[in-house]
Amino acid sequence: MISPTAEYALRAVVAIAQAGGDAVVTPTLAEITKVPPGYLPKVLQTLRRAGLLISKRGLGGGFTLARAPEQITVIDVVNCVQPIKRIERCPLHIDAHDATLCPLHRRLDEAAEMVMNSFAATTISELLEDSNDGHPPLCKQAKPLNLRRPGKR
Amino acid sequence: MISPTAEYALRAVVAIAQAGGDAVVTPTLAEITKVPPGYLPKVLQTLRRAGLLISKRGLGGGFTLARAPEQITVIDVVNCVQPIKRIERCPLHIDAHDATLCPLHRRLDEAAEMVMNSFAATTISELLEDSNDGHPPLCKQAKPLNLRRPGKR
Repeated sequence: MISPTAEYALRAVVAIAQAGGDAVVTPTLAEITKVPPGYLPKVLQTLRRAGLLISKRGLGGGFTLARAPEQITVIDVVNCVQPIKRIERCPLHIDAHDATLCPLHRRLDEAAEMVMNSFAATTISELLEDSNDGHPPLCKQAKPLNLRRPGKR
Repeated sequence: MISPTAEYALRAVVAIAQAGGDAVVTPTLAEITKVPPGYLPKVLQTLRRAGLLISKRGLGGGFTLARAPEQITVIDVVNCVQPIKRIERCPLHIDAHDATLCPLHRRLDEAAEMVMNSFAATTISELLEDSNDGHPPLCKQAKPLNLRRPGKR
């Protein structure tokens, strides 16, 4: 449905969001997200360049979200790395008939639109809602992760 | 949303369906569908092996649908070449927590389900409904194609 890269980007954003504002370093993100080591830095840099992440160097550095998780949607993340393609013009390149898609491409475009709307209606904060079993929301780990500093939410 | 191969398969099935029961040869399908020459025979053989197409050799030969276009859905075609993947188990391979997907993967799976349901509810015959301008439905051609033999529907 979405590309592996887009899914990796979503894992990374959710993992950073669930740190509750604390900066998360790449090795920690690699451990949580299980994104292949060669991919993760590229995905993080793409998200940073797109303005979704902030990176800080040095002690206490790492990645944080550039906006609150309530203000980032799934489509924001997906569009950074591999936008869902709408069919706006005839894929058979018949210029004379580009204005109206044929029924086949209209249906395929409707499916793309449906997915885009669903992703646009889902914020990252909604993905943090847990199933109330004390495990982090990204994907429940065998042992709960301790990402937050004591006393911080 | 779907892979190029799946889209090529749909173009081919619609082009064969719009011939109204006449066998269509590969060069004609190549002209109508504009599928890259290297791909089309592979796509057609995949659809034939999956039981969606029948091929006849010799004079008057070519490809026909194995079932009426009312009995073939978009998902039947897509599933032949590149099935839409549902997320049934945790993609992070945490066995202990496979039974319940995390919110992220649940949402992604819901999107896949939504597209599958939409494609399962759309028959090939619905894609043949034209915009009443006399052009074939696949994608309107610059000049109407004469695929049907005189006197045949």
